[in-house]
Amino acid sequence: MAKEQAASKKAITKRSEDYSQWYLDIIEAADLAENSPVRGAMIIRPYGYAIWENIQKILDQMIKDTGHVNAYFPLLIPKSFLSREASHVKGFAKECAVVTHHRLKNNETNDAVIVDPDSKLEEELVIRPTSETIMYDAYSRWIRSWRDLPLLINQWANVMRWEMRTRAFLRTSEFLWQEGHTAHATCEEADAEALKMLGVYVDLVENYLAIPTITGQKSESEKFAGALRTYSFEPMMQDGKALQAGTSHNLGQNFAKAFGVQFTDKDGQLKYVWQTSWGVSTRLIGGLIMTHSDDKGLVLPPKIAPIQVIIIPIWKTEEEKKKIVEKAEEIHALLKRKNIAVQLDERDYLTAGEKFYEWEKKGVPIRLELGPKDLEQDQMVAVRRDQEGKECIPTAQIGTYIEETLVHIQQNLFERAKKFRAERTYRIDSYDEFKKILEEKPGFIYAHWCGDADCEAAIAEETKATTRCIPFDEPEEEGTCIRCGKPSHKRIIFAKAY
Amino acid sequence: MAKEQAASKKAITKRSEDYSQWYLDIIEAADLAENSPVRGAMIIRPYGYAIWENIQKILDQMIKDTGHVNAYFPLLIPKSFLSREASHVKGFAKECAVVTHHRLKNNETNDAVIVDPDSKLEEELVIRPTSETIMYDAYSRWIRSWRDLPLLINQWANVMRWEMRTRAFLRTSEFLWQEGHTAHATCEEADAEALKMLGVYVDLVENYLAIPTITGQKSESEKFAGALRTYSFEPMMQDGKALQAGTSHNLGQNFAKAFGVQFTDKDGQLKYVWQTSWGVSTRLIGGLIMTHSDDKGLVLPPKIAPIQVIIIPIWKTEEEKKKIVEKAEEIHALLKRKNIAVQLDERDYLTAGEKFYEWEKKGVPIRLELGPKDLEQDQMVAVRRDQEGKECIPTAQIGTYIEETLVHIQQNLFERAKKFRAERTYRIDSYDEFKKILEEKPGFIYAHWCGDADCEAAIAEETKATTRCIPFDEPEEEGTCIRCGKPSHKRIIFAKAY
Repeated sequence: MAKEQAASKKAITKRSEDYSQWYLDIIEAADLAENSPVRGAMIIRPYGYAIWENIQKILDQMIKDTGHVNAYFPLLIPKSFLSREASHVKGFAKECAVVTHHRLKNNETNDAVIVDPDSKLEEELVIRPTSETIMYDAYSRWIRSWRDLPLLINQWANVMRWEMRTRAFLRTSEFLWQEGHTAHATCEEADAEALKMLGVYVDLVENYLAIPTITGQKSESEKFAGALRTYSFEPMMQDGKALQAGTSHNLGQNFAKAFGVQFTDKDGQLKYVWQTSWGVSTRLIGGLIMTHSDDKGLVLPPKIAPIQVIIIPIWKTEEEKKKIVEKAEEIHALLKRKNIAVQLDERDYLTAGEKFYEWEKKGVPIRLELGPKDLEQDQMVAVRRDQEGKECIPTAQIGTYIEETLVHIQQNLFERAKKFRAERTYRIDSYDEFKKILEEKPGFIYAHWCGDADCEAAIAEETKATTRCIPFDEPEEEGTCIRCGKPSHKRIIFAKAY
Repeated sequence: MAKEQAASKKAITKRSEDYSQWYLDIIEAADLAENSPVRGAMIIRPYGYAIWENIQKILDQMIKDTGHVNAYFPLLIPKSFLSREASHVKGFAKECAVVTHHRLKNNETNDAVIVDPDSKLEEELVIRPTSETIMYDAYSRWIRSWRDLPLLINQWANVMRWEMRTRAFLRTSEFLWQEGHTAHATCEEADAEALKMLGVYVDLVENYLAIPTITGQKSESEKFAGALRTYSFEPMMQDGKALQAGTSHNLGQNFAKAFGVQFTDKDGQLKYVWQTSWGVSTRLIGGLIMTHSDDKGLVLPPKIAPIQVIIIPIWKTEEEKKKIVEKAEEIHALLKRKNIAVQLDERDYLTAGEKFYEWEKKGVPIRLELGPKDLEQDQMVAVRRDQEGKECIPTAQIGTYIEETLVHIQQNLFERAKKFRAERTYRIDSYDEFKKILEEKPGFIYAHWCGDADCEAAIAEETKATTRCIPFDEPEEEGTCIRCGKPSHKRIIFAKAY
């Protein structure tokens, strides 16, 4: 992996100076991704993709453990499919890549290719912005009886939405995701499924990505177009903004009716199925960056880090080098046997300092240094990415130290993020204070809201804060809407959001 | 997985009657894939996708073990990129899906969507038919010095070629594949890499898919457009045709020159890199089907089978059911602990016979039956998918029996396919005999050929047989071209091909 890193020396902008620029600098400094020649599409570089592979591996196992199977549906969707479920189209099928022709040909001077006008398609095809329509068309053929239910299918795929303003990982025209699409005999079963998969996401996000999160239900205006109910988890970024990182929908029977997905129930009656869909994407990597990283670079939780431990041998003479590299290789092999993702940086054209700097920027949780003095004293110097300071560890204890410290770092990052969120969480009853907080030190504001969509829109316009979710664990409480003063029975979370 | 199977009762066409139809029937009977509403694109159903996942898992590990890392590049490629490497364009960039617009809008009556003419792109984008151009554009930025070499990157992706005649797995407009793209300092290194990855493919195909194969070099007319040399592996299908299932190319410096991929070498000189690319796709599943399956359905080698063992409990009374299912669950748990992909079919709305039929069609290597008599005698009935007949196995020996038999089935399928190929392999020196064999019992014909492209084309036209490869293990031998009589120094393999 070391081979393809361009030794970028560009300084990272401080978070306090410009959070947006800091985010982009981290991505560049850690070699995670870069812009491509295609507007809004990024190239995910090997180090960034290795993080995605780790997320995929963990989540895919969770999806299978909950009884789902993977399948693959076509990338292109006939335009007419998108007209079938009206509110779905209204919601977001508009900005998408449209395929109109199927052939190129040489130009007259034979020095470039042009689109062959004779290859115009009878019906235009759209690159999937999401796959409800193409999948449910198949479900209508696959499902016949209650015996075919529940149908529990997931797909790992690339999707495309022609976004106007793009930002690496957070909003790109093409992105990678998984989309689960299930069909059930009853609304209750569908709802239980949607909640179960939200729980799977929380497990992934909290226990692996170390990102604390709040779960709840979306308001009517924030829910997925075509869904009955949308559930979401909402993590807070270091600038106090929420990141909608994944949603799970009870789709009700809307799509079933549009696509004719029916089954004969045990009672002999023909009924429409109840459906769910749920997805998370490469956006999670954006959330990972904005939860843990600092002004020195990326910080990665050990459970998701492509490299958990980097070993850096330090030598001056060739004689030293031989002995030190030998010892370093021994430790490398020891940690490998313990299934730790360890890498040994033997490059001889970089100084130790340059190596420290590079792996720090890449967020490797633990750095182990081994110099001539350390070899003499049979120890290694350990540096944690999540803390300041160094520690000398006797070589005999390295295995245990690494195993324990990786657990500690994982916990520490999660606790740190929880503490940060607690400091930025408010319960507010005055609209003036509400606005003041959003201007001065934004975060999650638990406030009463009347439930009216116009009032919600007005708050968004006046403060840039949107409703994030009605948290599941928030008790009923009588109050009055923060803006209009009408009665409210529960608080909802407001925040600025990505 | 059982849940989503429509109980298709359609008879499978015999291979001897219509091999093409048999192939399609197998895919339908085993629930591997189906046609989608988008011309030439298939839906890969869960059971078919599980096979692809197994292939991916094995191959991905091999690719990583040989030092490569994964990355992800954009789906869409600017049209102008395809004009840069002229012979590449000539080769196959023409039939591809072209994106010309980026927005839909409602029609005047608001009941359907139409393409918004105002959203026309300045430059059309093409859905990648392969990623050389978009990747090497990035490589030209990433590679600066010899220290950045070799650059060893692989991508798992969907690609699209607007094929006129499509056929599930073998030739679909969209397909899934991996494409490796490496850059090296010298031609020798690039050639060694191309051959190494061909070796990786042979390992996958022979040792996991149980498909015997021959490796060699493609003729000039059959090589990849833009490559210096193309290496391929060539398995033989049951109809005697060759399936080009994967290739590995030494690209020379053609693309490096077109995309300006240069590095400063140790001697301080600026040089163009030497590149390779190599790929295999979902086509392998077509090869798997056509190598092992029979008139009863799919046959899968154990190492690639999503389900290696199916347990079928058989009962009449409820009392029997309780005891038998209990015992079946015990065996299921035992095999699970041994990491065997085992499934227990407890469905009570199908007869045992229906279940046998279903799992036979799906190619599960071993079926275990447990009925009241078996329970009494503390045994199970085992049926191998690759052989006729049944065997009674004492319950205490089930674990060992399964482990050993899975190995035997894997070996047997490979040996059977090798034997078949041997019977269809010919060394021919007369053009009349050559033509006769191709008509009567086609297979691989080792024959002398002058090396002239026109002669090669004439043979293809006259016999439908193309040159497959010059096998690596074929010794030099003086002879005369099968068609024109000019001198030749080595035999090349001719065959009809998919």
